[in-house]
Amino acid sequence: MRKSLSHYDPAGRIRMVDVSAKPATQRQASASARVKMSLRALRAVKRNPKGNPLEIARIAGISAAKHTAELIPLCHPLLLSHIDVQAHFGKNGVELSATVSSTGATGVEMEALMAVTVAALTVYDMCKAIDRGIEITDIKLLKKSGGKSGTYHAS
Amino acid sequence: MRKSLSHYDPAGRIRMVDVSAKPATQRQASASARVKMSLRALRAVKRNPKGNPLEIARIAGISAAKHTAELIPLCHPLLLSHIDVQAHFGKNGVELSATVSSTGATGVEMEALMAVTVAALTVYDMCKAIDRGIEITDIKLLKKSGGKSGTYHAS
Amino acid sequence: MRKSLSHYDPAGRIRMVDVSAKPATQRQASASARVKMSLRALRAVKRNPKGNPLEIARIAGISAAKHTAELIPLCHPLLLSHIDVQAHFGKNGVELSATVSSTGATGVEMEALMAVTVAALTVYDMCKAIDRGIEITDIKLLKKSGGKSGTYHAS
Amino acid sequence: MRKSLSHYDPAGRIRMVDVSAKPATQRQASASARVKMSLRALRAVKRNPKGNPLEIARIAGISAAKHTAELIPLCHPLLLSHIDVQAHFGKNGVELSATVSSTGATGVEMEALMAVTVAALTVYDMCKAIDRGIEITDIKLLKKSGGKSGTYHAS
Amino acid sequence: MRKSLSHYDPAGRIRMVDVSAKPATQRQASASARVKMSLRALRAVKRNPKGNPLEIARIAGISAAKHTAELIPLCHPLLLSHIDVQAHFGKNGVELSATVSSTGATGVEMEALMAVTVAALTVYDMCKAIDRGIEITDIKLLKKSGGKSGTYHAS
Amino acid sequence: MRKSLSHYDPAGRIRMVDVSAKPATQRQASASARVKMSLRALRAVKRNPKGNPLEIARIAGISAAKHTAELIPLCHPLLLSHIDVQAHFGKNGVELSATVSSTGATGVEMEALMAVTVAALTVYDMCKAIDRGIEITDIKLLKKSGGKSGTYHAS
Repeated sequence: MRKSLSHYDPAGRIRMVDVSAKPATQRQASASARVKMSLRALRAVKRNPKGNPLEIARIAGISAAKHTAELIPLCHPLLLSHIDVQAHFGKNGVELSATVSSTGATGVEMEALMAVTVAALTVYDMCKAIDRGIEITDIKLLKKSGGKSGTYHAS
Repeated sequence: MRKSLSHYDPAGRIRMVDVSAKPATQRQASASARVKMSLRALRAVKRNPKGNPLEIARIAGISAAKHTAELIPLCHPLLLSHIDVQAHFGKNGVELSATVSSTGATGVEMEALMAVTVAALTVYDMCKAIDRGIEITDIKLLKKSGGKSGTYHAS
Repeated sequence: MRKSLSHYDPAGRIRMVDVSAKPATQRQASASARVKMSLRALRAVKRNPKGNPLEIARIAGISAAKHTAELIPLCHPLLLSHIDVQAHFGKNGVELSATVSSTGATGVEMEALMAVTVAALTVYDMCKAIDRGIEITDIKLLKKSGGKSGTYHAS
Repeated sequence: MRKSLSHYDPAGRIRMVDVSAKPATQRQASASARVKMSLRALRAVKRNPKGNPLEIARIAGISAAKHTAELIPLCHPLLLSHIDVQAHFGKNGVELSATVSSTGATGVEMEALMAVTVAALTVYDMCKAIDRGIEITDIKLLKKSGGKSGTYHAS
Repeated sequence: MRKSLSHYDPAGRIRMVDVSAKPATQRQASASARVKMSLRALRAVKRNPKGNPLEIARIAGISAAKHTAELIPLCHPLLLSHIDVQAHFGKNGVELSATVSSTGATGVEMEALMAVTVAALTVYDMCKAIDRGIEITDIKLLKKSGGKSGTYHAS
Repeated sequence: MRKSLSHYDPAGRIRMVDVSAKPATQRQASASARVKMSLRALRAVKRNPKGNPLEIARIAGISAAKHTAELIPLCHPLLLSHIDVQAHFGKNGVELSATVSSTGATGVEMEALMAVTVAALTVYDMCKAIDRGIEITDIKLLKKSGGKSGTYHAS
């Protein structure tokens, strides 16, 4: 079996993956999330008279991606060359996606997931006064490319 | 209508809620999340020979709660008096919950949600080498108490 | 002479001011800054088709205020109850102001100055591709209230 | 027109510049700032019996440069190879300058501006007990080199 | 037995101590550390022509105390009202001590230890080019006061 | 004399070392520390029924290494490719060691020392309720390799 829990050593102790010998290659990962809210909350967010209320969620997501290695204990610090967060109104809430790029020795899946997740939590924060029952769901990796393990597409 | 988008001023510009005049009261909030993974990944995590592989997720969640005000742009810095993160194996993955307590002028919902979310992302990080299709779902507020808006229980 | 360099001990060594014995009172401080840019840059910023391009500067300023104690070595960590950043187009650029509130043992002047300064730097960052000669000027305290030293108004 | 607001996409939404395809080159940027204070405050700072009171401002500026990507939302994380902050007494206050170097895909203007600005705010913090009317002015880019846009010198 | 490992629950899982019900009282803690270096390194540090080379270690220690809750996983965020770090040349190196004060529901031992430790590491960093064999020893709590467990003095 | 206090300029002012012209090479550094505690505390830690109580110290050490450049004023930000922290029970307490790897223009000694030190402080935090007299000693560099100054082994 090729795949294993790379974050554990043979004795079962947690460990960081050693990427010292891996070459720096171009990496990209995309992730998505969904914020489900009541129609009432959704209407209130959309009615906002000025500017686009999803912009703050996008900015929060971009900033959060830069903090990934501080928040996820075994993540490596990485130089991110691009962080893009998209936010759109859907039928039942807000649809979020993020794409992160880096040239480095390890992938940026966690950065993309962190971006989309904190963007979703920011939407929650903006709307919670109207609807406390908001749910965040469907946080998942859409795609990843670069590195030895090659390209992955969510089925 | 009593409830509104408190994070926007009348002109639609984003704003922080002013809690200067609100008294400090005991606040508590609980949130939950679910990490859905393949049976293969779940078995690999459980098989880990030594210690409890969910401990690192719990620690990451506790730490993340302390970073909430840095990650969510309009959150207030708060003195958290307790952060508890629980993680259990379920049938299809890992079930997470978090409870955060504070004595302050505003609630700790976002802190509980942040704890449970980063704990879930840490589980993802630990297992992604085996299963890239892992999904994080059902992130929601379970309960909140304290403050003028009173107690909330998810239905 | 009542006033002295409170951040130095009698031997001239740097020190933090000890506020252990000071009571927590309501504090507020306001500060302002100005970003001077070419008409060409100003027009480009204003022409932006969607949303308000100054919103990101406001969000960056709010977030920065929360980081004041990490950036200014002798500042005390404080619980900020409100951070407001305003940004308006003026004749020669962008006018910024910030008001920060806290209930604590020491003032929030540095937090207001940090908010307005990082907001100004964010405007710079947004416009630097068009005009590298942008200048940030007139960073100053407008007002402070609360605490033993009483209220201050810039003349 | 070659130059545009690179931080906005065609629809006017804020975006980070994608530097994934840009080669890493040696970059350098210098910036300056001025802290204007009353003669009384200036004399008090200079009279400080031991050590150089501007050293703490220099250290704060060096540290702040490392935090630039966390404070300015659309800045890329960068590996800074050198941060130099100079602080001198002038006729009306303190003159500050900073030079930052990096080998990377994007420039270090914001890092130099952040260094000089936080150094100036630290001087403010050290002197505010004596003079609340201190102003920070003339924050500007002096020079930048490296990258496709070539060398810039403030006129 | 009154004392136990408060950071573990009855099942042996790591936990944060819940201080929600504890009253805020004045707390203080002092800690010390020693940096042992060769005479050659010690002489070089002392010979430094301008200012006091231990000042940067003191500033680094003060700043580090504010980061304690981010670095020590189960520490509570606290409002520190004073952080004092002292550094003196001894016979075989540098003697460091720190005193931290807070009004809160839990003690500041870890903050005092963090201050003194990072100050010591900063001395190490300043001198390592001359002497790589420097050792940091005798990091310990000197005193603590406040809170239910009362006053402690190192014997 | 080849070696000097590289962190001071000829005038005695603190400075960061300029590594702009140094090539990126593979670097590694190892450091160790010792936590001395009473037999009673040691027995209580070992008796912990579930999991390995030293795991949280290891995780805290790994995380702390990533924060080195924020805590030590003149350290350069670095991309760490591996951080390993080991913790074992010894006769009189806990023995800690850390190895950090990076490909960069400067060494990772401070990162290894930070990892081992914060891991030791975390052990202290876990045990302080039982034994306030715990001491952290013998923090030192064990080995370093890579870079112009070559390999160092503690004698």
